[in-house]
Amino acid sequence: RTLKIGLIPGDGIGREVIPAGRRILEALPSSLNLKFSFTHLDAGWETFQKQGVALPDKTVEVLKSDCDGALFGAVSSPTVQTKGYSSPIVALRKRLGLYANVRPVKSVGSGGKVGKVDMVIVRENTEDLYVKEEKTYTAADGSKVAEAIKRITEKASYNIAAMAGDIALRRQRVREAGAESIHSRPQVTVTHKSNVLSQTDGLFRETARRALAEQKYQSVKVEEQIVDSMVYKLFRQPADYDVIVAPNLYGDILSDGAAALVGSLGLVPSANVGTGFAIGEPCHGSAPDIEGKGIANPIATLRSTALMLEFMGEEEAAAVIYKAVDANLEEGRLLSPDLGGKATTEEVIEDVCKRL
Amino acid sequence: RTLKIGLIPGDGIGREVIPAGRRILEALPSSLNLKFSFTHLDAGWETFQKQGVALPDKTVEVLKSDCDGALFGAVSSPTVQTKGYSSPIVALRKRLGLYANVRPVKSVGSGGKVGKVDMVIVRENTEDLYVKEEKTYTAADGSKVAEAIKRITEKASYNIAAMAGDIALRRQRVREAGAESIHSRPQVTVTHKSNVLSQTDGLFRETARRALAEQKYQSVKVEEQIVDSMVYKLFRQPADYDVIVAPNLYGDILSDGAAALVGSLGLVPSANVGTGFAIGEPCHGSAPDIEGKGIANPIATLRSTALMLEFMGEEEAAAVIYKAVDANLEEGRLLSPDLGGKATTEEVIEDVCKRL
Ligand SMILES: CC(C)[C@H](C(=O)O)[C@@H](O)C(=O)O
Ligand SMILES: CC(C)[C@H](C(=O)O)[C@@H](O)C(=O)O
Repeated sequence: RTLKIGLIPGDGIGREVIPAGRRILEALPSSLNLKFSFTHLDAGWETFQKQGVALPDKTVEVLKSDCDGALFGAVSSPTVQTKGYSSPIVALRKRLGLYANVRPVKSVGSGGKVGKVDMVIVRENTEDLYVKEEKTYTAADGSKVAEAIKRITEKASYNIAAMAGDIALRRQRVREAGAESIHSRPQVTVTHKSNVLSQTDGLFRETARRALAEQKYQSVKVEEQIVDSMVYKLFRQPADYDVIVAPNLYGDILSDGAAALVGSLGLVPSANVGTGFAIGEPCHGSAPDIEGKGIANPIATLRSTALMLEFMGEEEAAAVIYKAVDANLEEGRLLSPDLGGKATTEEVIEDVCKRL
Repeated sequence: RTLKIGLIPGDGIGREVIPAGRRILEALPSSLNLKFSFTHLDAGWETFQKQGVALPDKTVEVLKSDCDGALFGAVSSPTVQTKGYSSPIVALRKRLGLYANVRPVKSVGSGGKVGKVDMVIVRENTEDLYVKEEKTYTAADGSKVAEAIKRITEKASYNIAAMAGDIALRRQRVREAGAESIHSRPQVTVTHKSNVLSQTDGLFRETARRALAEQKYQSVKVEEQIVDSMVYKLFRQPADYDVIVAPNLYGDILSDGAAALVGSLGLVPSANVGTGFAIGEPCHGSAPDIEGKGIANPIATLRSTALMLEFMGEEEAAAVIYKAVDANLEEGRLLSPDLGGKATTEEVIEDVCKRL
């Protein structure tokens, strides 16, 4: 089987880590019988400066018509409000209908200061405040007022909760097949702020509970947490959480928070998932502070590549990559500086590829 | 001087901790020359069930006409959407124009797992998604859609940033007067998500930067962090942060997150501050799980009482309370269960009062 992968490096260290995705795919054992072809695609701040758009139509068209999956690096944002600029990854999620953002956060070995962590944050990926419907007006006294719409739909809430339930069940199957885990039963925690936003977050909460009450999720324990309390608990008792489902913005915040638990954002992958299409994306940003130094941690991208494969149905290939990454981390000899090591991006990639 | 204090216990452990505020005020050394009178006021879920409103007008009127300050405990929220119920603390903040929510988070001794922490989160307290302008409608296909308004005004953003700047300067003065601190210069970190919400959070960001660029804040270092990254940094390098200023919802989330750094939400105070009026409020909720057991940590309320005094201009009295609380924590003999101890609410109150 030949898989066509779009590569969208973006800006900053996006360009240094996306090659890791390509390298690991090309290094997969031939016994897996997978071949890959790659297409480079533009997006980001530099693209905006050159072409006047941050997400060229061509990128979207090629992804739609000619790719089975893709990897997205990271993009820089302008430091001042810039007319016409709009985040390309936010646009991509919407235009490709990638309704779920799946972010597994897992510690390797004995875990960090907070102990072992093994959770997946399942973030709604198309609505909430990310609809970006904003307006600005002038008040009677001449001062400015700006408003944004937060939109929550029953449909998207249902779909994301079902995705969370499915992931909880899949994780349970993997555990039952013998994988070690800190969890013994599937659990989904619904996160919201319905004590203030009774209609919007209220709709999210009710719909999620209804979705997860269906027969097929019978074995899943369903809990809820108000988002502020969720952040608190995340840091106090991270081992209590298996799958967390949240509206877009809370999911964004929670996944960065969870990343802090495992030592570095440079370890945390994500997949933007739609029906039949997935874009792997490291959770870190373009990191202008280390750009060009060749020391960006490629692990988030390697894991995002595996995650993309998982959602393309290639679970075996994904498992091979996860194992190689875990082995690198467990040995702890070749680590990038964000993990306290001295290895370059290149050295980490090589080490992981060797372990495939 | 006699100060009239409104006491609003609310629900759950709110009723167990608010008496701590009264007790500590009554136990203040007579050399401070302060007298107090107290009025009990209703609000909360039980009030709603009895009177049909969660925040009776009478409570607001008495606070306005007959109080110099107040203490608010915590309220329970209904577990299902309840017509007519609306959070009384959110309403109180708006009706009394308490535009700032000030939340100091400070570790005692050598700090916890993450090291020393000494920061203040300054949260805008009246707008953002807390305007609670929501509507629900039915889409063409019969499914539900709900929308909420996030409103950011130049005025409120300016005021909250100025408050953050003032607090940074005040903290610096206290340090220069000899107080030990992990910080050596005043700093304000502006938190937002303007990479997605370019108009609303863009307005907050620009206005905050403009306010903090004024001559009087010349010595204050001004930084910014996108909210997701802020949560990550909060946990990775908490000692880097002095004052953090944020729109309402991010401030809510960040302050719970920061509380996790110092061991317990039961330690973290807040003050809802307006022009000439402040309501002290522990950051924890009504905690139904420990209600009635007499083991709620009163420290957050004791510190909130001190914070209220600070904003009433009684800095000396506030300092006396802070010192007594720190002494209790440093000794670590009488701690409530959330801190790993066995002391009751009563025992902690007594111990702190003895140390005044
Ligand atoms: C860059 C930004 C628009 C994006 C988001 O908020 O979704 C990022 O933080 C992420 O998590 O992928
Ligand atoms: C109870 C709730 C409405 C409140 C808030 O969100 O402001 C609480 O979390 C707080 O931080 O005081």
